[in-house]
Amino acid sequence: MRGAAGAQLRPEETLAVDIPSTPALVLNLDAAEANIGRMAALAAANGCGLRPHAKAHKSPDLARRQIAAGAVGITTATAEEALAFAAEGIDDILVANQVAVPEKMGALARAARELRITVAVDDEENVRDLAARATAAGSVVGVLVEVDIGMGRCGVRHPGDAANLALLAADLPGLMPRGVMGYEGHCIDDPDPVSRRRRTEAAVGRLSEAVAALESCGLPAEVVSAGGTGTADITSGLAPVTEIQAGSYVLMDVYHQLTTAAFAVALTVRATVISRHGDLIVVDAGRKALGGDLALPQLAGIAGETAFVHEEHSGYHVEPGRMRVGDQVSIVVGYAPTAVNLHGAYHVVAGGTVVDRWDVRGRYW
Amino acid sequence: MRGAAGAQLRPEETLAVDIPSTPALVLNLDAAEANIGRMAALAAANGCGLRPHAKAHKSPDLARRQIAAGAVGITTATAEEALAFAAEGIDDILVANQVAVPEKMGALARAARELRITVAVDDEENVRDLAARATAAGSVVGVLVEVDIGMGRCGVRHPGDAANLALLAADLPGLMPRGVMGYEGHCIDDPDPVSRRRRTEAAVGRLSEAVAALESCGLPAEVVSAGGTGTADITSGLAPVTEIQAGSYVLMDVYHQLTTAAFAVALTVRATVISRHGDLIVVDAGRKALGGDLALPQLAGIAGETAFVHEEHSGYHVEPGRMRVGDQVSIVVGYAPTAVNLHGAYHVVAGGTVVDRWDVRGRYW
Repeated sequence: MRGAAGAQLRPEETLAVDIPSTPALVLNLDAAEANIGRMAALAAANGCGLRPHAKAHKSPDLARRQIAAGAVGITTATAEEALAFAAEGIDDILVANQVAVPEKMGALARAARELRITVAVDDEENVRDLAARATAAGSVVGVLVEVDIGMGRCGVRHPGDAANLALLAADLPGLMPRGVMGYEGHCIDDPDPVSRRRRTEAAVGRLSEAVAALESCGLPAEVVSAGGTGTADITSGLAPVTEIQAGSYVLMDVYHQLTTAAFAVALTVRATVISRHGDLIVVDAGRKALGGDLALPQLAGIAGETAFVHEEHSGYHVEPGRMRVGDQVSIVVGYAPTAVNLHGAYHVVAGGTVVDRWDVRGRYW
Repeated sequence: MRGAAGAQLRPEETLAVDIPSTPALVLNLDAAEANIGRMAALAAANGCGLRPHAKAHKSPDLARRQIAAGAVGITTATAEEALAFAAEGIDDILVANQVAVPEKMGALARAARELRITVAVDDEENVRDLAARATAAGSVVGVLVEVDIGMGRCGVRHPGDAANLALLAADLPGLMPRGVMGYEGHCIDDPDPVSRRRRTEAAVGRLSEAVAALESCGLPAEVVSAGGTGTADITSGLAPVTEIQAGSYVLMDVYHQLTTAAFAVALTVRATVISRHGDLIVVDAGRKALGGDLALPQLAGIAGETAFVHEEHSGYHVEPGRMRVGDQVSIVVGYAPTAVNLHGAYHVVAGGTVVDRWDVRGRYW
């Protein structure tokens, strides 16, 4: 876990009124829209497409705003998310992971009758299965060959394998090879900007090798996708990348603030003080409402130091006497994507009051 | 995070068939029922009541089995859980935390018209608020004064404060002081059994002081509640404890297996291999389906070492060639209570096949 002191936070003032019940997910709409505009401008300035990762927010309302600001479509982590967004009428969806459950492959193939659906692949048998499902559905599913660009997770390990899979997809009915993708997840949180740039360039170099391998087989890579919030400024300016997948920039959190100061905190969790002792306040939001991930959550708007994060509680040291039982506080989460999926809806705040309620969709995964 | 090697696990054989879609929460009913019987027998042998913590499973079906096996009622962590279980007809519910949101206090007070509801308190103003809500609802809410017995979270810090709050509750209409509670969460995962016992005895000693303070004011403590799965064998045998709150014993997980071998693993998450490279398999269940808590998840039933747990993925080193993309695996979660709330239902397995589907209730918190 990273983080502790609140010094690096620049939370917007999110709320002038109490929320009827807590824990509650609160979205500062002004801050989110400013973040959407900022990332769109960054990508456009580098001549790069932006396909925001919707796993970060799971909100069709935010996705529509991203598309209105110029995004070429959305990225999802799962078939469930893709189908939830497709049901909301959002088109051109990249599932940036392999899908190997027959039921999910079938559902994506059926969705591809109406919409443009692209899925990541890295395994020959899986490519054949996906082709069979698309053929059965009478649709064409796009595929991007995932290349492991240094993270050691999914993705083919050699450029030649990328070319072989793309050739296989080109030969099979039901599939359309569109290019390659990679994710430089091992560079994203490097706190040293110089090292982060050097390592990201090396990672994208591996994508270049895969693109060259595809091209040598007569398969141009129409799409080359990579990048996250922490590296978007670098990746969007590197050839051969055609689009970036950054997502967390819309909401932000303690973790992403450690590597980029370009985006404002738009997401907080509202909680109620349930116990206080000396300088310690204990609130009714713990890991089940804040997530328990990558960085410690921090109080927003008031000075305080995070003492602990338990399952249904978190504790903060504040000025003694500052808060009473029943008072509400706002908390910046450690890592937004694993906090959002714990809630059913956003309380959308503008001008200090709640103006709307937006569903969290595809919530399970 | 604790744990890594699979050596200490004794997972039951949970599944002889594939689940239609993954990630899926799988409950081995035989193992869960054996665990329920074992803890009931342990408490009975020590002449202690058992009020199992339902936050661990969020399942009315399991709660009913616990009550049928002799439990005196259930414990919950939140008002939401209490109301969800009350709606299922489960009576005598202890909310083992302070409730400070007016809406929730009101809902609990209304539930107390029909059912026995008890809530933990540690703050004078909160006690007055709760009394006002109960009076308005025309009900009587039981209260246990929470005593901090060494964890430094909620609970009064001094025995005299426990007596003062109990006296206040006795004076106010709408409230019924029933005794005290504490939670020795700081002892639960002490890996040394001798140290764990010594520290647990010291913690319960602080509850004894609070009980003495109440008695000196003429308020006998009808209920003295403490204990978790890792200390239940100790706490249930110590005066003045009248009931224990253990919950995780029903399901078990890697974390609890580090401190007790008395209970079998009854909970797994079923996942599908989506990518493989040499000895590495990557499956479609990460922190959003397994939780990311207290201990690393481990493969069940096959030899393997956990390589990483990401947001939507986890990776395991297994015998090369052992698994193919599309194969399913079972995973023992690191910490059950923060895995269960990520799912909508249990796939209930008996005799190697899925025999039922049980809802997860009060799922948010």
